[in-house]
Amino acid sequence: MKVPIVENVLKLNDEVAALNRVQLKEADVLTINLIGSPGCGKTALLETTLRQLADTLTVGVLVGDLATTRDADRLARWSPYVVQINTGKSCHLEAHQIRQALTKIDLAKLDILVIENVGNLVCPVSYDLGEDFRVGMFSVCEGDDKAAKHPQLVHAADLLVLNKTDLLAHVAFDPDVFRHDVAQLNPQAPLLEVSAGTDRIDNWLAWLASRVERSALQFSGPCN
Amino acid sequence: MKVPIVENVLKLNDEVAALNRVQLKEADVLTINLIGSPGCGKTALLETTLRQLADTLTVGVLVGDLATTRDADRLARWSPYVVQINTGKSCHLEAHQIRQALTKIDLAKLDILVIENVGNLVCPVSYDLGEDFRVGMFSVCEGDDKAAKHPQLVHAADLLVLNKTDLLAHVAFDPDVFRHDVAQLNPQAPLLEVSAGTDRIDNWLAWLASRVERSALQFSGPCN
Repeated sequence: MKVPIVENVLKLNDEVAALNRVQLKEADVLTINLIGSPGCGKTALLETTLRQLADTLTVGVLVGDLATTRDADRLARWSPYVVQINTGKSCHLEAHQIRQALTKIDLAKLDILVIENVGNLVCPVSYDLGEDFRVGMFSVCEGDDKAAKHPQLVHAADLLVLNKTDLLAHVAFDPDVFRHDVAQLNPQAPLLEVSAGTDRIDNWLAWLASRVERSALQFSGPCN
Repeated sequence: MKVPIVENVLKLNDEVAALNRVQLKEADVLTINLIGSPGCGKTALLETTLRQLADTLTVGVLVGDLATTRDADRLARWSPYVVQINTGKSCHLEAHQIRQALTKIDLAKLDILVIENVGNLVCPVSYDLGEDFRVGMFSVCEGDDKAAKHPQLVHAADLLVLNKTDLLAHVAFDPDVFRHDVAQLNPQAPLLEVSAGTDRIDNWLAWLASRVERSALQFSGPCN
């Protein structure tokens, strides 16, 4: 008798992520996993996004943080579909935490769900949450070497966002160095340069809108 | 017969850290574990430190990064005692990596060794490396909520450094909010506000010098 072998027993996270993905697809929700350093402006980008999309698209946010509900409180001013996930000592979100958080939101109401991961450029990269797109975010304040120093994130991202371009005059950051490193590591991923603090995020909003549209087309199929 | 119980088998890191601590004490080297977010200015602080202390104290640096030798290359202009540790996918330094790196440096030459940890506010907090002091570093670009959102680091730090104060006029950062959160979480730890990019680090240099002096007094004993 052949002994059955159970492979990949450590991939529980991936299995739960796959369940999340099915659930979110069925609800026709475009889902983004937003990964960036503490202070790169993830919450600021989402605040501006929620405010600017308020009349056109309904956006929910799951916010990962070690402690406090400060980010969720900021975002809840702009959307009723915000859930804070406090991870305690854990440096990343995992799929089962998303699964639990999804029970707190009426997905039928959403066009977009953004998962704001714990501020960290390393650990979140290893955990699929069930998203459609993984977005890697940096800010000019962090220095132009950060793409090269975090190749796994840049490589794994579907889109890269560089924030705080309004501060370029005040910090030592050569945009060409950063762009070059990104293009080397991931030629497929677009790089969007934004300034969430001064409301200059049109390229990001256009990217989101085009992804929602494509997702709707796929959902309705070619004959509808 | 009583069965022997081996407790804390997972504490291998702590055991290696203890060995590092003995080795560094015997060599009379003051050792700092510097923990902060990517882009908070750890390398900039160390560049300025090495340059300003060049005539008075000999400083070595072990630099942790996922990839590249960019930080070590920057620092090697100012000290011959710099070692880069590339961690690959790992989000923090561990004591055994320090143990290996120590074999690359003549400790007898050093007054101070700074371990620049991987840019990350979460994971490095859990790993003792054998240091005398743990320093938690933030920058004003990250936002005034970052102490509250990373209580484990603030709580575990012997000293906190807030960098990039030269940019206060350009970012939304209320120093009183940050100071208040730090004082609540860790009333014992001093908070030093610096601007490494504009060479304003006198308070940090004074703190280092006083620690080297105390360490020397302890080493020579009360009768010398």
